[in-house]
Amino acid sequence: MIGSISVQTRGPGFYEITRALQEQVEGQGDGVLTAMIRHSSASLLIQENADPDVRRDLLEWLDRLAPRADHPSMAWVTHRLEGPDDMPAHMKASVLPVSVQISVSDGRMMLGRWQGIYVVEHRDAPHRREVALAFTPA
Amino acid sequence: MIGSISVQTRGPGFYEITRALQEQVEGQGDGVLTAMIRHSSASLLIQENADPDVRRDLLEWLDRLAPRADHPSMAWVTHRLEGPDDMPAHMKASVLPVSVQISVSDGRMMLGRWQGIYVVEHRDAPHRREVALAFTPA
Amino acid sequence: MIGSISVQTRGPGFYEITRALQEQVEGQGDGVLTAMIRHSSASLLIQENADPDVRRDLLEWLDRLAPRADHPSMAWVTHRLEGPDDMPAHMKASVLPVSVQISVSDGRMMLGRWQGIYVVEHRDAPHRREVALAFTPA
Repeated sequence: MIGSISVQTRGPGFYEITRALQEQVEGQGDGVLTAMIRHSSASLLIQENADPDVRRDLLEWLDRLAPRADHPSMAWVTHRLEGPDDMPAHMKASVLPVSVQISVSDGRMMLGRWQGIYVVEHRDAPHRREVALAFTPA
Repeated sequence: MIGSISVQTRGPGFYEITRALQEQVEGQGDGVLTAMIRHSSASLLIQENADPDVRRDLLEWLDRLAPRADHPSMAWVTHRLEGPDDMPAHMKASVLPVSVQISVSDGRMMLGRWQGIYVVEHRDAPHRREVALAFTPA
Repeated sequence: MIGSISVQTRGPGFYEITRALQEQVEGQGDGVLTAMIRHSSASLLIQENADPDVRRDLLEWLDRLAPRADHPSMAWVTHRLEGPDDMPAHMKASVLPVSVQISVSDGRMMLGRWQGIYVVEHRDAPHRREVALAFTPA
């Protein structure tokens, strides 16, 4: 099976796609679901789905690892055409996953109890993010 | 083939699973082995298997990127319920892999000479970590 | 299909392999291409393929996250045998991907318009980097 989903984002944050992906593997037997985001300034991430503070703290931490280009510590940044949120978005997108792979057993994703799957938006402006999907049988 | 292994950890560190994974692909022909950790505060990593100093330095570096929540520089952290080692564990688990994929040729993982596969524990307390496995034929 | 390509590097930088990988999946139908670098001091990365400033800024940012071992802030580093560029190379290789997975539809990689696939070299000296490939059908 191959397919895709798209996600409308509204600024930096986590947008959960766990249920949408589970629907795609319903009835697919054993294998691996690969989801790949077709963008270089947003990411996919499997992370905790319980306390929303975890996701807020992760966003803050990523902002500190890769501050906006108008922050004094980022005066050396050269790629500035698309605004101060653009280059840090590429930085975050380099260390978070472009693709995630989830084991599937008898049509069910084998996520742990506290794991959810998210599109992570790094840009300020709203974006329509496409996620390509492929199920490869085991 | 789908399956799983579990690894008992005893605090932050690297726990090698290279041999356990090789046993799983014995006799499987050509394809890809996907291993996915079912937790959001531990990681999988393919890294150098020779000098143990490399792994010690990696742990220290990760501690500096994501210090414990009781460190003065982390006063902004809000997710504190499970102790000062919890939120940095999620941070480290966001930038290290949740899953790894290894090419398999005629039942042998095609790792480089200096590559080993590890569960990386980020929490202080002992944990039983489950790793879901799937072999998808090429 | 399994296979491999090798890339000769000449110091830290991005070496594009998008076209070489597309050639490998020509005529392969639907599935997933997995590329895995067989080294622990170089990485694979899917990132922006338009403005080269993005890649230059990414290298500079990674150098600031993981400075050379002779930088005063890295005095704690113990793995120094292979030179000051070695341990930061392992650090960078821990947070950038060892493997990438690309969805393939009817023999075409489903990359976004602005995505290219790169070997990222972290060492100073020239290296021959091997990339193992596997196409698993969907």
